[in-house]
Amino acid sequence: MTVIEFIENHRTAYLQELKDFLRIPSVSTREEHKKDVQEAAKWVSEKLRSAGVQSVEVVQTPNHPLVYGETAQLPGRPTILLYGHYDVQPAEPLDQWTTPPFEPAVRDGNLYARGSADDKGQLHVHLKALEALRKTEGEVPINVKVIIEGEEEIGSKNLWSFVLENRHGLKADALVLSDTSMLARGVPSITYGLRGLNYYQIEIMGPRQDLHSGVFGGAVPNPIAILAKAIAGLHDSSFRVTVPKFYDDVIPLSRSERKAIASLPWKESEFRKIVGVAELCGEKGFSVLERLWCRPTLELNGIWGGYTGKGEKTVIPSKAFAKLSTRLVPGQDPKKIARLVEGHVRRLLPKSVTCKFDVLSTGEPWVADYRHEIFGKALTSLEKGFGKKAVFVREGGSIPFVSQMHSLLKIPCVLLGFGLPDENAHAPNEHLSLDNYFGGIRSTALFYQDLGRNGPKL
Amino acid sequence: MTVIEFIENHRTAYLQELKDFLRIPSVSTREEHKKDVQEAAKWVSEKLRSAGVQSVEVVQTPNHPLVYGETAQLPGRPTILLYGHYDVQPAEPLDQWTTPPFEPAVRDGNLYARGSADDKGQLHVHLKALEALRKTEGEVPINVKVIIEGEEEIGSKNLWSFVLENRHGLKADALVLSDTSMLARGVPSITYGLRGLNYYQIEIMGPRQDLHSGVFGGAVPNPIAILAKAIAGLHDSSFRVTVPKFYDDVIPLSRSERKAIASLPWKESEFRKIVGVAELCGEKGFSVLERLWCRPTLELNGIWGGYTGKGEKTVIPSKAFAKLSTRLVPGQDPKKIARLVEGHVRRLLPKSVTCKFDVLSTGEPWVADYRHEIFGKALTSLEKGFGKKAVFVREGGSIPFVSQMHSLLKIPCVLLGFGLPDENAHAPNEHLSLDNYFGGIRSTALFYQDLGRNGPKL
Repeated sequence: MTVIEFIENHRTAYLQELKDFLRIPSVSTREEHKKDVQEAAKWVSEKLRSAGVQSVEVVQTPNHPLVYGETAQLPGRPTILLYGHYDVQPAEPLDQWTTPPFEPAVRDGNLYARGSADDKGQLHVHLKALEALRKTEGEVPINVKVIIEGEEEIGSKNLWSFVLENRHGLKADALVLSDTSMLARGVPSITYGLRGLNYYQIEIMGPRQDLHSGVFGGAVPNPIAILAKAIAGLHDSSFRVTVPKFYDDVIPLSRSERKAIASLPWKESEFRKIVGVAELCGEKGFSVLERLWCRPTLELNGIWGGYTGKGEKTVIPSKAFAKLSTRLVPGQDPKKIARLVEGHVRRLLPKSVTCKFDVLSTGEPWVADYRHEIFGKALTSLEKGFGKKAVFVREGGSIPFVSQMHSLLKIPCVLLGFGLPDENAHAPNEHLSLDNYFGGIRSTALFYQDLGRNGPKL
Repeated sequence: MTVIEFIENHRTAYLQELKDFLRIPSVSTREEHKKDVQEAAKWVSEKLRSAGVQSVEVVQTPNHPLVYGETAQLPGRPTILLYGHYDVQPAEPLDQWTTPPFEPAVRDGNLYARGSADDKGQLHVHLKALEALRKTEGEVPINVKVIIEGEEEIGSKNLWSFVLENRHGLKADALVLSDTSMLARGVPSITYGLRGLNYYQIEIMGPRQDLHSGVFGGAVPNPIAILAKAIAGLHDSSFRVTVPKFYDDVIPLSRSERKAIASLPWKESEFRKIVGVAELCGEKGFSVLERLWCRPTLELNGIWGGYTGKGEKTVIPSKAFAKLSTRLVPGQDPKKIARLVEGHVRRLLPKSVTCKFDVLSTGEPWVADYRHEIFGKALTSLEKGFGKKAVFVREGGSIPFVSQMHSLLKIPCVLLGFGLPDENAHAPNEHLSLDNYFGGIRSTALFYQDLGRNGPKL
């Protein structure tokens, strides 16, 4: 039996197993889910063993554990370092889910659950590809090192100390992961660039306590109004970020890359349909894909203050809060950008309030040189596994680990994306196309098979 | 025994009874407190009977009940219409209360509880003044009609239909109420002006659903940023409201009134201490008291959207919300102002989002002519009851009922304020000074006694 036949014979079992994984509410940002995150780590370690990764360990950290494993490292075979994460975003707002976030449900060829696309479903693709190879070929045909973390959605803080401590043991010929999206349905994609992410929280403190807006209104600073004014000062009318020096270090796009991006089979009309607004917006002088992939941004992610319940409360609140983030592109230094953003926000505030500015996390951007041989092998495997033409793309999201590993280990990073742009990662009704899930397992198995057969070294 | 002696002998019992009243969490804006609001109405009706108001009725309405009562109307005596409210503001944020909002506690001569100042404590002053007169003089010396509502904090919607239906029965020589503040500790005050209040809620709808801020950031409208920009466009740098025509109908202050206000025993330093900010703010060209009492304002009361939990969530939210209100002064028409504010907000929004603009309530401003004889009697009673010089003041807050009753019945409205500006009405740790509570009972009893003795008609 070929590995492809084996995979086709096990579709039901694979899907059943993935549903078990998705039932674990491993929300890493929430203290109350700490146990669930532990459970997910244990689940992953068991499945790794059955995928042929004999030596597996759940490594405890000051927060959530990571799972590390290795196959027996046979000489003369290429070694890949496989990465994934088993933690998920919070599922709120719960009332917007058609079916509950942690009760996986299949509708119209899609599997709905928090984590289905980001990243449990895509991680499971690799587990099943390896297992299928082991069961059909008697062994996993390549050397595998695998590192699956539980803190990707909260900045991967403890992953990095593990990596630094074990950097010699982690040596590999390539880093492989699936935590990105295809350009569009039916267009298998390899991502060669990601934006970096800095995440900030602002707290504006005005009056010592909440005040009656009738008795005090008109003579005291209102933290909501002041926060709003500061936020309004973060972009100009051409949607450029007004933080001084924000764009100074951005490496400009080459003409050839702009041309390649412009020629991709990507439809703005499809994108508009997902977004569902009357009018897109963005930085002048750049195409939509360039804005999404290659230009830095500053986005508001949350805001709150004062009375937010039903009905009326005539209050001037003591405090107002916002969460915001910057996406960064090659050339920009996250630490420097964090300082620039904080400085700009503080300059926008009047003396009547005080401000607490917290940098919750920082992360580097990354771009790969996809002329390396392994990218060609990956592209071919995707085209065979899906029966479609595959493409190289960049992505606007962030996987801090990729840029960090790239600069530490100096190895190619191969990002095989099996998600779709409209699959609501981080939003209600997150889902994964079953076509892409199974196409992913087939392609990944073919990719690992090819690497094993055509080694010894990349 | 004089009525003053009687009152002094019953301090402990009065305070005990007021605490019972304050234990009822009659939060009118919250569906889950509907029963408590009913209970508070029943409590009020019982205390009215013991105050000598023989005929009392709890009048059910489509929402919360109101309590209506009358003494036997004896010819030749002046008739007052007494107003108050037994509903209270929500108590949130609960964690900022030193003792729980519905467990009354005395500390440093103050009674702490939600509703202690606004308005249960001040309403109780009148109940005990009437009762003391009845017990010492054998009967209440004036004719009393009394209307106590349970919807003051949510716009008094059903009060008004009751008043219109019963307008002939409500005829009186004056409206009397206590739901305002003294200018400062030791300065008994009669309020002759109130601002009107319009309350609005804005909902900004952008993307059809929450989106990943990495994958979509840079090309789609962000409802938080757009809402913030609109809010920033509601005031100019001199803190004037930028809504076109907002100030057009404002009746300017007379020189003599500005002079009277400037000469009041009011200290900006005390006000600053309550507010606790490095710098006050407000409309150029007006004193702090003028800004608070005589100038219209637009204040933000609440804002929310996106992720507001702990940690990070990289989301562009589908929606963002704000609650805001305008305080209005004589000359301004609430309905017209509501239209102007809505129009201005809509003009500030880009086509990329839609907006739901709700006017939750509107309310007229009010100013009295305090040269009427009854104001002199009230001033004298306050000076006797407190042993201090009393003053006439305006107030920045709103009591829609006062302006409505004034234009309907064309009678003087006498607002005896026993609160203090730092008593946190609408905020955590609301409290009432016991000196003012008992001084209030004494003054009010003397006022009603004087009206009865020196009738027949005002």
